Amino acid sequence: MTASDLLSALNWRYACKVFDPERAIPDETWAALEESLVLTPSSFGLQPWKFLVIQDAELKEKLVPHAWNQRQVADCSHLVVMTTHRVMPEEHIDANIRRMMEVRGGTPEGLMGFRQMVAGFRQSGEEKGWLGDWAKQQAYIALGQFMLAAALLKIDTCPMEGFVPAKFDEVLGLTGTDYTSSVLCPAGYRSEDDRYGVLPKVRFDSKDVIERR
Amino acid sequence: MTASDLLSALNWRYACKVFDPERAIPDETWAALEESLVLTPSSFGLQPWKFLVIQDAELKEKLVPHAWNQRQVADCSHLVVMTTHRVMPEEHIDANIRRMMEVRGGTPEGLMGFRQMVAGFRQSGEEKGWLGDWAKQQAYIALGQFMLAAALLKIDTCPMEGFVPAKFDEVLGLTGTDYTSSVLCPAGYRSEDDRYGVLPKVRFDSKDVIERR
Repeated sequence: MTASDLLSALNWRYACKVFDPERAIPDETWAALEESLVLTPSSFGLQPWKFLVIQDAELKEKLVPHAWNQRQVADCSHLVVMTTHRVMPEEHIDANIRRMMEVRGGTPEGLMGFRQMVAGFRQSGEEKGWLGDWAKQQAYIALGQFMLAAALLKIDTCPMEGFVPAKFDEVLGLTGTDYTSSVLCPAGYRSEDDRYGVLPKVRFDSKDVIERR
Repeated sequence: MTASDLLSALNWRYACKVFDPERAIPDETWAALEESLVLTPSSFGLQPWKFLVIQDAELKEKLVPHAWNQRQVADCSHLVVMTTHRVMPEEHIDANIRRMMEVRGGTPEGLMGFRQMVAGFRQSGEEKGWLGDWAKQQAYIALGQFMLAAALLKIDTCPMEGFVPAKFDEVLGLTGTDYTSSVLCPAGYRSEDDRYGVLPKVRFDSKDVIERR
């Protein structure tokens, strides 16, 4: 891809405020975006997440009041609720190691050093209380990658922090589970009525946010 | 871009462990990646960050011991230190609003509602202690987008949380400023010696991380 095509996609993207509720993302396009979620990098490769993909109209409507009545949640084609571990359980490390052995081969003994390091990291995060924040940060990697991936395929998105996680968890059956709703990303097609779609993008001048050393 | 080209780029990317210290990213490619950082979406569009781009060999070497001696910090072509607001100052909201007016026109009066909402958000985050975490999350959007942008241009990256922020801040002259080092992303070219470059990617099976509703 050329630098200029990349910048076109980044400039085409905006936080879509009004989706066209009549348009659905074709299955083959969605399959690629779903795969892009699966391929998201994460710290230690731990993938402390589940991505809920909601297309059911009734369920999306139920979530709207818990997202400050923002219609994007219901009018999008696919609503992605990025959920992350409240407190990543130690078993999750073992699941990750089993997967490493499936994909790359190797033995539990050979991965012992890795397991110990990650288990120490996990324990420290649980004791000091930052493990949930760490998992949530990983979801933001997914968010950043997903928005660009979607834009490259001419799919609109809207990153959303404006919702009530506890209420989302309740509606989605996550209360009392290991996972909690961290950030939302509806995806679909912009409506022609969305005046934000034609506004110039507001970013600080590069001299104010980039510092060369 | 086709779905298959997108997936190729995502599969080509990996966390580069050994960079080729002899290869530098060409200026025009770097200019596009720098622009991609500037274009990163953020909550409310507030961009609570500065991206330090370090090419100076001596400075990169000085940082290595504070990044668990990981050589990527020095052997990359461009080291991006993503710094975010410790506690986003209220003046930052005004700077953002001035920029909105520069780019889109409008008046302070017309943007009063937006200002009040964001100032309330900021104050709540300061009082409850989550404002710094929120800013750091925004850097992870930048990280996710940047890694994919780089991969599309065939530039290797390595997301890094393994460093001592206070030490980085000290070396980079950030101690006592509004900004702190949140996450690193060296960029450059993989070395042929990097055995990780040829290992298959480990991701959970999609049925374990994607849930359709």
